[in-house]
Amino acid sequence: SSRFRASEHQHARYNPLRDDWVLVSAHRVKRPWQGQLEKPPPEDVPRWDPKNPLCPGATRANGEVNPQYEGTFVFPNDFPALQPDAPEPDDSDHPLFRAAPARGVCKVMCFHPWSDLTLPLMSLAEIRTVIDAWAELATDLGASYPWVQIFENKGAMMGCSNPHPHCQVWASSFLPNEARLEDRTQREHLSQHGVPMLLEYAEQEARRKERLVVENADWLVVVPYWATWPYQTLLLPRRHVCRLQDLRESERDSLASIMKRLLIKYDNLFEVSFPYSMGWHGAPTGPHLEEDCRHWQLHAHYYPPLLRSATVRKFMVGYEMLAQAQRDLTPEQAAERLRSLPEVHYKEGDK
Amino acid sequence: SSRFRASEHQHARYNPLRDDWVLVSAHRVKRPWQGQLEKPPPEDVPRWDPKNPLCPGATRANGEVNPQYEGTFVFPNDFPALQPDAPEPDDSDHPLFRAAPARGVCKVMCFHPWSDLTLPLMSLAEIRTVIDAWAELATDLGASYPWVQIFENKGAMMGCSNPHPHCQVWASSFLPNEARLEDRTQREHLSQHGVPMLLEYAEQEARRKERLVVENADWLVVVPYWATWPYQTLLLPRRHVCRLQDLRESERDSLASIMKRLLIKYDNLFEVSFPYSMGWHGAPTGPHLEEDCRHWQLHAHYYPPLLRSATVRKFMVGYEMLAQAQRDLTPEQAAERLRSLPEVHYKEGDK
Ligand SMILES: O=P(O)(O)O[C@H]1O[C@H](CO)[C@@H](O)[C@H](O)[C@H]1O
Ligand SMILES: O=P(O)(O)O[C@H]1O[C@H](CO)[C@@H](O)[C@H](O)[C@H]1O
Repeated sequence: SSRFRASEHQHARYNPLRDDWVLVSAHRVKRPWQGQLEKPPPEDVPRWDPKNPLCPGATRANGEVNPQYEGTFVFPNDFPALQPDAPEPDDSDHPLFRAAPARGVCKVMCFHPWSDLTLPLMSLAEIRTVIDAWAELATDLGASYPWVQIFENKGAMMGCSNPHPHCQVWASSFLPNEARLEDRTQREHLSQHGVPMLLEYAEQEARRKERLVVENADWLVVVPYWATWPYQTLLLPRRHVCRLQDLRESERDSLASIMKRLLIKYDNLFEVSFPYSMGWHGAPTGPHLEEDCRHWQLHAHYYPPLLRSATVRKFMVGYEMLAQAQRDLTPEQAAERLRSLPEVHYKEGDK
Repeated sequence: SSRFRASEHQHARYNPLRDDWVLVSAHRVKRPWQGQLEKPPPEDVPRWDPKNPLCPGATRANGEVNPQYEGTFVFPNDFPALQPDAPEPDDSDHPLFRAAPARGVCKVMCFHPWSDLTLPLMSLAEIRTVIDAWAELATDLGASYPWVQIFENKGAMMGCSNPHPHCQVWASSFLPNEARLEDRTQREHLSQHGVPMLLEYAEQEARRKERLVVENADWLVVVPYWATWPYQTLLLPRRHVCRLQDLRESERDSLASIMKRLLIKYDNLFEVSFPYSMGWHGAPTGPHLEEDCRHWQLHAHYYPPLLRSATVRKFMVGYEMLAQAQRDLTPEQAAERLRSLPEVHYKEGDK
C-alpha cells in the first residue's frame, strides 16, 4: 500500500510521561463544523472595577479589603477545595470503598493590578515578578506539602470566572494522580535509560526541530510528539532542573522572555486572547525534599482548547472520555503554524 | 478534632476501575458562580428537516441519500477518525518517539427517524430496538476488531453537532487507553479477590443503597463511590455478563426500562434535555474472543457535565487537568437528588 505520512494517515502515538496513547487522525480536520460556537472573550474589561474581588482596594467575599497592590498579590482562596485541618475519613470497610485524608491550602495570585492585562501584554520585568512569586510560593508551601500545584485557567471556556490576570496555587498533603503518574514514568525512564526523560526529550526536540515553537539559551517550547490538545505545548528547561525554586536569576529572565514569546504567538494564532489551562510540574516537596529527585525535570504544560478559530474548540468527549484522546491535526502541523506566527502581539503591531 | 462527615470534610476517594483518585470537596458547592453560562438546548427542533444529514430521505456529505428508515439506521461516518486501511507508521527510531498503527471503522447510528425525540421520550419498544442494534454492531464489528466503542455525545455542550438522536460506534485495531486500564484493574481484582470487581461492586451497592439511583431485577444504576462528574452514573448488570451481545431477551427489555427511568430523572433534574457522554465497556473482542474474560463485567458510564442548573456546568480544567479530578458535591448527595426525582418526564407530566 501507499507510503505512510503522519499528516494523512491515522496512527497512535505514545505519551511516555503519562504512559498512554493518543490517536492522531489529521485528515479529520477537513470535516465541517456545525456544532457549538464559543463566545470570544470580552474586549471591554475595565482596568479597575471596585466590584471585582481581584482588584486592588476591592472587598472580597470574606469582607477583607485588598491592599493597593502594585505587583503580584497572593491571598487565600475564599472557597478552597483544600483546607489545612479536615478530619480523617473513617477506615474503609471494603477494598472497593476506599477514602483517604486530603489536606491542603488554596491560594489565588493576581499577576498585576490591572484587570485588562494578560501575561503576553505585560513587560518582561512584570512577568519576571510573577515567576519570582511562583518560586516563592513553591518554596513556602513546599516546605511542608508534598505537592504544590501552580495553575492558570485563562478564559471563560476554561472555567475561569474572572478576567483579571491571575493563577491559583493548590498545595496538598498527597501526590495527585498526575504527579504520581509522572513520578513513576520519569523514575522508570531514568532507571532504564540512565538519563532524565525530559532532559533527553528536550535534547532530541532541539535537534529534530519540527515540533519546536520557540527557544532560547535556557528553554524550549515544543508541541509534544504526543500532544492531545490541538495547540498543546510543553515548556522545558535545557538544563536539569528539579523545581521552580531552583531556577537561577538568568533562567528566570529567559523564562519571562520565552513565556511572553509563546503567549504572543498563542494570542496571534486566532487574534484573540487565547484560552488555556497551564501549570507547573516539578519534583515533589515536603517529605520528598530529602529524596533523590534526579528522575524529575521541571516543566510546564499548556492545554489550550481552541481548534479552528477563536470560536471553534476541540471537544474531548465521547470517544476521548470513554476510550482514548484523539486529535485532528498533527503536532508537527500545529508547531509549524505557531512557529510561523509573528512575535509582535496583534494588538501592539500598529504602534 | 470533629467527627468526619463526607458532605462537609474534603477527602480523596479511590477509583478501583481506573486506579486513580478523586478529590471530594463538598463544602465548595456553596461558592457563587460568576463564570460562563451554557446555552440551553434548542426547544424547537423540527421533527424532519431535509437539510439534516441524519434524517430519513436527506442527502449526506458524500452525496448518498438516506433511506426512509423507520427504526434505527446505521451508516458510515463521513469524516471517520479511523479507516480500515491506513499504512503502518515507520519504525520508531527512539523510545520517546513511538508510533503505532491504528485501523478501524467509524459508524453513526440514528436511534429514531424523528429529530425532536430523545431516548427518555422514546417508547420501551423503541429503546429496545436501539439496544438490539447496539448488540448487533458489537457482534459484527467485534468479529474482527479488538475494541468496539459505542458512545453517545448528547447536547452541544458535549461537542454534539446534531440534535437528531444518535450515537457513534468506533471500532479499532487496538485497545484504547480506557480499555487497557479497565482490563488491567479488573484482571488484578479477580486474581486478588476471586470475584469480578464490578459484580462484587454491584452487590455491595445494592446492599448499601445510599448511592443507588434506580434498580430492577437485572440492572442497577449508581453514582459510583468514586464519581468525578457531579451526576456521573454507572449502569451495571446484576448477573455476570461480559458483553452487550451476551444479554438475554429479558435483560434487553429490562435494560430499556432502566435506561428510560435513568434518563427521565436526568432530564427532570434541571428540566432540560440533559447533556452527557455515555458509552459501553465490555470484554475485548476480535482476537480476544477466545480468551478468558471472567474478570470483565459489562457496564455503561454516563458522564454529564452539568453541576448546578441547566446553564452551569462543572469545568474539568486547571487543577483537574494538571493534578486530579475534584468534585463539589458528594456522590451520595448526587444519588439522593436523582433518586428523589419523579419517573415521569417533565414534558409529559401534564398529559
Ligand atoms: O464526531 P463528532 O460528533 O462530529 O465529534 C464529536 O465527537 C468526537 C468523538 O467523541 C470528538 O472527537 C469530537 O471532538 C466531538 O466534537
Ligand atoms: O476556582 P475557580 O476558578 O472558581 O474554578 C475553576 O478552577 C477549578 C480548579 O481547576 C475547577 O475545579 C473549577 O471547576 C473551575 O471552574
